[in-house]
Amino acid sequence: MAPAPLHASKLVVELTTSPKDVLANEDLVFGKTFTDHMLEIEWSKAEGWGTPKILPYHNFSFDPATVVFHYSFELFEGMKAYRDKDGNIRTFRTDKNMARMNRTAKRASLPSFDGEEFMKLIDKFLVVDQKFVPEGEGYSLYLRPTLIGTTAALGIRGPDRALLYVIASPVGPYFAKGFKPVSLEATDYAVRAWPGGVGEFKLGANYVSTIVPQEKAIENGHSQNLWLLGEEGYITEAGAMNVFFAFQTPDGKKELVTPPLDGTILPGVTRDSTLILAKEKLASDEWTISERALTIHEVIARAEKGELLEAFATGTAAIISPINNIEYRGTHITVPVEDNTSGPIAKKVNEWIRSIQYGEVEFKDWSRIAK
Amino acid sequence: MAPAPLHASKLVVELTTSPKDVLANEDLVFGKTFTDHMLEIEWSKAEGWGTPKILPYHNFSFDPATVVFHYSFELFEGMKAYRDKDGNIRTFRTDKNMARMNRTAKRASLPSFDGEEFMKLIDKFLVVDQKFVPEGEGYSLYLRPTLIGTTAALGIRGPDRALLYVIASPVGPYFAKGFKPVSLEATDYAVRAWPGGVGEFKLGANYVSTIVPQEKAIENGHSQNLWLLGEEGYITEAGAMNVFFAFQTPDGKKELVTPPLDGTILPGVTRDSTLILAKEKLASDEWTISERALTIHEVIARAEKGELLEAFATGTAAIISPINNIEYRGTHITVPVEDNTSGPIAKKVNEWIRSIQYGEVEFKDWSRIAK
Repeated sequence: MAPAPLHASKLVVELTTSPKDVLANEDLVFGKTFTDHMLEIEWSKAEGWGTPKILPYHNFSFDPATVVFHYSFELFEGMKAYRDKDGNIRTFRTDKNMARMNRTAKRASLPSFDGEEFMKLIDKFLVVDQKFVPEGEGYSLYLRPTLIGTTAALGIRGPDRALLYVIASPVGPYFAKGFKPVSLEATDYAVRAWPGGVGEFKLGANYVSTIVPQEKAIENGHSQNLWLLGEEGYITEAGAMNVFFAFQTPDGKKELVTPPLDGTILPGVTRDSTLILAKEKLASDEWTISERALTIHEVIARAEKGELLEAFATGTAAIISPINNIEYRGTHITVPVEDNTSGPIAKKVNEWIRSIQYGEVEFKDWSRIAK
Repeated sequence: MAPAPLHASKLVVELTTSPKDVLANEDLVFGKTFTDHMLEIEWSKAEGWGTPKILPYHNFSFDPATVVFHYSFELFEGMKAYRDKDGNIRTFRTDKNMARMNRTAKRASLPSFDGEEFMKLIDKFLVVDQKFVPEGEGYSLYLRPTLIGTTAALGIRGPDRALLYVIASPVGPYFAKGFKPVSLEATDYAVRAWPGGVGEFKLGANYVSTIVPQEKAIENGHSQNLWLLGEEGYITEAGAMNVFFAFQTPDGKKELVTPPLDGTILPGVTRDSTLILAKEKLASDEWTISERALTIHEVIARAEKGELLEAFATGTAAIISPINNIEYRGTHITVPVEDNTSGPIAKKVNEWIRSIQYGEVEFKDWSRIAK
């Protein structure tokens, strides 16, 4: 018999007998408390995808030889569920997360699945744990779809067993009191990703190596690394986020730039949304929207000429994180911000995306109501 | 109170009440069956290293938010215990493994420890599970020291909880019926490690990305990848092993070459042992032993001139794995071997190391008896 595909209709639900209290909004900490339940689906090479289960949140029991502990067979997505003013629970462009998760799974020799079937299950999970989706601007339920290899044997090969699961953590706004711009250390002694590597995939393997450089950046008075690549100093990402720069151009126009998806860049959903919305909403006789390579040297040179208008990072956690300073080998680049918050483009993009996420504005099929 | 260091004297032993049968040598499969017990030590940022415990082999119970499942906070070592002709259990140059494990832990923002204290605990573990150390040439007990982050929270930062543990699997010889040379695909579309990356550390993160390229190499009729780096085609590693080439030189001498430890190469214990023994035992008026960069193009050119004498990979699993063929973009490089086994240097190095590992020959302090 052929291995079974993932089918949402097979879902089995077992409700908790010890429901948790819902925390007050002001007590929420990112990724620290979780909802009453979790979603999980086992996979084996022989049988394919098993019965999807919504179960009371529980520990896993794994043999110490399980490959996820040894060879980093692990990948994830980060998504959020938002409560709109009518009480609906909405998710944002999750088809992009599903596609990326499947691409990453393939690269990691882990099983892929029908993304829409998985989203139907996540919708059911959201309905079951709906009391944990907070109300209030900037509040949301963070969703962590995760796929791990669960074969218990030390041979280095593709796992023949895996577990796909989702846990959910209610979270507050990244910037509780309005935008607070961050300072970046442009980092070239450590490299996040490289051509022929796996930087474009949301593998756990891409994160462990970033911690020590980030700690060093913090010691030096910055918030995050601005990751550079190669002798040319190509800018790739900012911390675990994509990055945008806005420049005045000599012809009197302006350019919004982000590095291209050349294999070293995580294809962020917020990055893609920023590009699409900027092309749609910024006046095309005034703005050029570019995916192109840019180096730290270009940023320094244009900042010196007064052409650097603003810079910001994009990601699911913050939507937009404005940047006000970059240090590269002792050179400080001051990035303009208004009133110590952000530049005008960062503010606009943030509001465009936020208003779609919370269902205040309809845009394409970007917002989905969980049923 | 300062966090506690790792102390072997604190060891607590709980013996199993359901001992396993020892498998016959011919039934052993690498990393598939394990001994009766395991060694584990918990760490927390606040308290430091806890009580070392030898416990019955058991599953772990972890929250699904545990960072080892998400951000690849995981690293390991591979070591072997050998039974000598007097019945002693010996390990080989484990001080090198301990030093590498500590370097890797530091890079991964995981806790380090006194390697000799950890080795004393591993010695005790070997004595407790000594019945699983097989007799017979090439047989050994494979040891897997592992360190994982166990904080249960999704924030991307250095774990404040960790678990150091060791499991052990009895294994047979890599080549059950004498050397069998392997064919390599010289791979440049995927890149294992990069300057500024983490290729020199034994992180789980370095393994997941190698599986798909290895599967492709196997589809193309090879056993492993010969990993190349950069436009120059620098040779770095072979599969999960280090690699050596022997050349005839124009001055009538011979050169044994392995790539230098420039940050992209795993500093293998067998690699280091090969270099030291080759310098000590090969006639210096005949041989030059080099750690230097070499490219696939040099190998092709010198093979064409008849100067390529042999090539082999080195690692704990096989000691030596002879190479008889390399394919690079359709070009096949035939590597000389004798009688479809190996070249003479591979054979010598393998025997030098094996005889020290099994205590037949004393060399420096490389062999340690577990007590």
